[in-house]
Amino acid sequence: MLKIGEIGWIEKDKPEINPRDALVRPLALAPCTSDIHTVWEGAIGDRHNLILGHEALGVVDEVGSEVKDFKPGDRVIVPAITPDWDNEAAQRGFPSQTTGPLGGWKFSNFKDGVFGEYFHVNLADANLAHLPEGMSLEAAVMIPDMLSTGFMGAENANIPMGGTVAVLGIGPVGLAGIAGAKLQGAGRIFAVGTRPKATEVAKKYGATDIISYKEGATDEQILEATDGEGVDAVIIAGGGSDIILDAVRAAKAGSIVSNINYFGNGETLPICREGWGFGMADKDFATGLCPGGRVRMERLADIVTYGRMDPALMATHVFHGFDKIEEALLLMKEKPKDLIKPVVIIDENL
Amino acid sequence: MLKIGEIGWIEKDKPEINPRDALVRPLALAPCTSDIHTVWEGAIGDRHNLILGHEALGVVDEVGSEVKDFKPGDRVIVPAITPDWDNEAAQRGFPSQTTGPLGGWKFSNFKDGVFGEYFHVNLADANLAHLPEGMSLEAAVMIPDMLSTGFMGAENANIPMGGTVAVLGIGPVGLAGIAGAKLQGAGRIFAVGTRPKATEVAKKYGATDIISYKEGATDEQILEATDGEGVDAVIIAGGGSDIILDAVRAAKAGSIVSNINYFGNGETLPICREGWGFGMADKDFATGLCPGGRVRMERLADIVTYGRMDPALMATHVFHGFDKIEEALLLMKEKPKDLIKPVVIIDENL
Amino acid sequence: MLKIGEIGWIEKDKPEINPRDALVRPLALAPCTSDIHTVWEGAIGDRHNLILGHEALGVVDEVGSEVKDFKPGDRVIVPAITPDWDNEAAQRGFPSQTTGPLGGWKFSNFKDGVFGEYFHVNLADANLAHLPEGMSLEAAVMIPDMLSTGFMGAENANIPMGGTVAVLGIGPVGLAGIAGAKLQGAGRIFAVGTRPKATEVAKKYGATDIISYKEGATDEQILEATDGEGVDAVIIAGGGSDIILDAVRAAKAGSIVSNINYFGNGETLPICREGWGFGMADKDFATGLCPGGRVRMERLADIVTYGRMDPALMATHVFHGFDKIEEALLLMKEKPKDLIKPVVIIDENL
Amino acid sequence: MLKIGEIGWIEKDKPEINPRDALVRPLALAPCTSDIHTVWEGAIGDRHNLILGHEALGVVDEVGSEVKDFKPGDRVIVPAITPDWDNEAAQRGFPSQTTGPLGGWKFSNFKDGVFGEYFHVNLADANLAHLPEGMSLEAAVMIPDMLSTGFMGAENANIPMGGTVAVLGIGPVGLAGIAGAKLQGAGRIFAVGTRPKATEVAKKYGATDIISYKEGATDEQILEATDGEGVDAVIIAGGGSDIILDAVRAAKAGSIVSNINYFGNGETLPICREGWGFGMADKDFATGLCPGGRVRMERLADIVTYGRMDPALMATHVFHGFDKIEEALLLMKEKPKDLIKPVVIIDENL
Repeated sequence: MLKIGEIGWIEKDKPEINPRDALVRPLALAPCTSDIHTVWEGAIGDRHNLILGHEALGVVDEVGSEVKDFKPGDRVIVPAITPDWDNEAAQRGFPSQTTGPLGGWKFSNFKDGVFGEYFHVNLADANLAHLPEGMSLEAAVMIPDMLSTGFMGAENANIPMGGTVAVLGIGPVGLAGIAGAKLQGAGRIFAVGTRPKATEVAKKYGATDIISYKEGATDEQILEATDGEGVDAVIIAGGGSDIILDAVRAAKAGSIVSNINYFGNGETLPICREGWGFGMADKDFATGLCPGGRVRMERLADIVTYGRMDPALMATHVFHGFDKIEEALLLMKEKPKDLIKPVVIIDENL
Repeated sequence: MLKIGEIGWIEKDKPEINPRDALVRPLALAPCTSDIHTVWEGAIGDRHNLILGHEALGVVDEVGSEVKDFKPGDRVIVPAITPDWDNEAAQRGFPSQTTGPLGGWKFSNFKDGVFGEYFHVNLADANLAHLPEGMSLEAAVMIPDMLSTGFMGAENANIPMGGTVAVLGIGPVGLAGIAGAKLQGAGRIFAVGTRPKATEVAKKYGATDIISYKEGATDEQILEATDGEGVDAVIIAGGGSDIILDAVRAAKAGSIVSNINYFGNGETLPICREGWGFGMADKDFATGLCPGGRVRMERLADIVTYGRMDPALMATHVFHGFDKIEEALLLMKEKPKDLIKPVVIIDENL
Repeated sequence: MLKIGEIGWIEKDKPEINPRDALVRPLALAPCTSDIHTVWEGAIGDRHNLILGHEALGVVDEVGSEVKDFKPGDRVIVPAITPDWDNEAAQRGFPSQTTGPLGGWKFSNFKDGVFGEYFHVNLADANLAHLPEGMSLEAAVMIPDMLSTGFMGAENANIPMGGTVAVLGIGPVGLAGIAGAKLQGAGRIFAVGTRPKATEVAKKYGATDIISYKEGATDEQILEATDGEGVDAVIIAGGGSDIILDAVRAAKAGSIVSNINYFGNGETLPICREGWGFGMADKDFATGLCPGGRVRMERLADIVTYGRMDPALMATHVFHGFDKIEEALLLMKEKPKDLIKPVVIIDENL
Repeated sequence: MLKIGEIGWIEKDKPEINPRDALVRPLALAPCTSDIHTVWEGAIGDRHNLILGHEALGVVDEVGSEVKDFKPGDRVIVPAITPDWDNEAAQRGFPSQTTGPLGGWKFSNFKDGVFGEYFHVNLADANLAHLPEGMSLEAAVMIPDMLSTGFMGAENANIPMGGTVAVLGIGPVGLAGIAGAKLQGAGRIFAVGTRPKATEVAKKYGATDIISYKEGATDEQILEATDGEGVDAVIIAGGGSDIILDAVRAAKAGSIVSNINYFGNGETLPICREGWGFGMADKDFATGLCPGGRVRMERLADIVTYGRMDPALMATHVFHGFDKIEEALLLMKEKPKDLIKPVVIIDENL
């Protein structure tokens, strides 16, 4: 990113590392919708000459003197969010918010991202995880953000065993939300979206009913399908600010609306007063930023290792070579119908 | 209530009771701001010839054939919310939402309220509680709604031991929220309000800092007092819809905004997008309707019995006699400066 | 059950029902290990002429005057536990403990069980669930106890997404615990047992590692397989009292030992002092009795309807006809190697 | 501690510090029952020439090069438990168990304690807290262990607002448990103990009923006082292993037994099988090790600053001067009747 609305290649020095940090080369990368927001919508404010990207697998190039568990040559999963684990917010139980709101998000936000020849990882022992041998890169590269964010949507939704869930939006994060809802015990799962490839994967991940917003109001369709009862939990995984209205109306009195959407526009976001029971209908909102850190990455890797779900289904477009990053990023911007997520394999033999 | 905007006395037949119900005569009553909303703002829609009131102590007049634990002459605490305990929403963990959103709220909503010579209580064994001997009526009459709602605000806020809390609004529910926050382990408690009598009680209930919204934006004052950090929990206990903006901004990344306010106006309510971290700052919203039922009333009675807080401090205006209800209600509407809550003692010797 | 150690057929009058109750005829039945404990170990004390059984599907024969949602002829799932939903323990959040410890368990405990031509169900609207059309009886009859108890084991274990779990015991409740652990987001799942048919189903339900206690101490094998770390959660689903020692030792510091075992012998049960960190290692114990009631049954039916797991895999021995109950019960007592659970289909055409 | 059973003064070199650590001189100290266990019972195994003590206020003498928030001369609260915040157990939510079971406990366990002229603190920025100006040293020195452990007992007990609690043991940790129970919303609080000074403070901290185990079985007295119902939560804060039997029997079906006792003897600890409902009565056990770290210390300091409870009431014996440590320790061993906790003020003017 050169400036808002413009991308290109930048020449930069190799980052320096502190004793607990690591320098990593990319092994596989994926652009994220947030990168699109960052560049073309200026979502996080103006940034100049910032290297984009926060979804990566890598190979350790160099480690600081205090790093114990990683050495040059190790293949690693790099979480999108790399918290400062000794910060007060981590002690409070909110590692993604260390050093301030969303402060655990460093790549392509406060510092250069992972779309470079080398990138810097803070607190290597606490944030990196070993890439399990034999795991496909297309699958593994979904772990740092897509699985971690999507699953968080389901975890925060407090789904009762066998409960009914609606997932609004079936981009990659929404799809991971569906898989997560299944892995949190959901019975019936409504998936709201229209893109054919995505609906196909949604069903494989556990969606039982596909709702198209083109065929009527989402909330009304869900209410009708549930005899007016609504659902036990709603996961918002896309949409503009009005999606909150649908979510609140589709939710039962006594439920959670769990947000994993990035709201990019408007001064305020609207809650429907009546659907919310004037503030008294026990329809809570849960929010959060993608959980990061080593333990999270290791656990999600186990989800893949033990076949609980197959994230590679989302890797619809696979590129090979570092110079394909731009193409992959632009594909993400164009969003062709059969796209879920583009992935760039830098070099399988690294 | 005769119709929206008009009150008066109505002649009605004594209510009939089912085998598990009870007929109760009032012993002490309190009008609630909701009654004001109901009549003069038409908040719950049009109602005709509806008896108002949902805060009462009473004397059992008659019980149904299946009632075991209560008999005529028993002095009882009557919860504002009387859930249908065998309904599905109770099984889901949301008794106040039984039979539909806010469906546990029956008095002066779906059926006649407690401001009558007799009133009907559903599921007497599950909803009534014995009034402990010797408990002052001024204190006990706060239990059915003020304590139950205010305390819920603190319970839902998930306050860490020693955490910092802000309570926005110091009407009686807000004051109970302050007392509740103290009883949930809060350290520092900001109370936002200006009325002198209420601020005096706020301090007695545990407020450590009084913030006047007349002296600047509430959120800015709280942020300044906390070195920009904000608070671990916010309890919204009053205000128009914009109070949500203050709440979200004053809350830390990693906190709960717990609502006990009744939002009476507007199609939608606003969340500030940036203060909410674009939906990712771990600032959750908790809502709910006053918990009802016998166990809740018994436990709150223990709070009073064992001196954990003294609700009688809120009974600033005490009337005697059934015919004083109208005067008390109008006082609630006028809201003189020294008013917290008016109470009507019907007859101490009942 | 005629008395401890002796079973046979008893002639009894048709049970009488109260206005909110139902009389039900069995459609499919399953004997439970508890029945064996009850008769041959006298586990719940002496009982005379008690009809056994608490796992049933049925057909409604008659309903009380206040029952609204069920009518004669309806096919229903009957929960093993039928709480008194307006009792204080339900208000406290513990419906299975209504009217006293384990008081929600009525069939073949406080009153005649379901192995009769007719049986009585309290609070029909709150406790029965409609049997979904087309659901196999072999699958559905596992819902009332096996799924509800086994899943509870996983729900109480607070399994982190991708966390590692050990399930001690692979009888039908343990198998449901494994399936439940998968549906609660477990990554790696150790199943401890030796019976070949059960280990086969354990793998289908999500077990990734089978541990045989014949090949060494269970806890040591689990610790070795996890590099000495132990597991995030242990579900105890069988064994004598010493199984607790294994569980505590195999659990990480910071974990939950979730019990769904019925402990039938001994004055006391042992916790290993050192493995428990002298009471300070954050290894909590969770216990509970099978959740009952209509909402639970409906939700678990959705688990089956939407293919989240297939409980019919546990029905290894299927009998047809009311007179086969005794044979099925004795099979349960003998426990042949290929048995998981016997099921008796009374009459598919009812 | 020279060896098991023998104490004395040891000459040692000043500890060395790493970049993130601090060297601290003691300002006020308190011996703990654990110190007694360590020396005279060999509770944590054999230790030679180990400096005892883990409860301290101090003055920073020297800080490592990466420490930002503390400088020489700062007066600080030193938590008894100083977790490694970037360790995996902290990421799992169990900082007191970092690097292994009870691994957050370093002072006088894995390294020299605080009863020296200088002591070493790991991760100064994450573990130390500034001592608020004007706070009495007798009060503040209770924060590092007594308040943190005692309050944890109440926090883990999940006390419902107005719920009934029993605290077994009224040593200083039990007394803090009582104060904590009140600050977690308890209504009625039973305190079990006999020492007159301690019972006096127990009442001031919120105990409503004093139970003497000399006047009958504890569990029976509690059951009798609650009409056979038992309590919503039990906090075990003292006693031998049989105290667990009392706790389980006094607890309601549907409750938590929260342990803050150090169990020092026996291979196993007993749970009463029948009282535990054969493992099915929803009587859970919660355990834990004193929470440490900076945020915890700051929050507990706020509890003291804002007058939520006064820990100085427990400082029954106050010594002045470094050379009085031995006397204070021996007093702790002797346990005279009027002792709650001895405190040694090293030098108020430091």
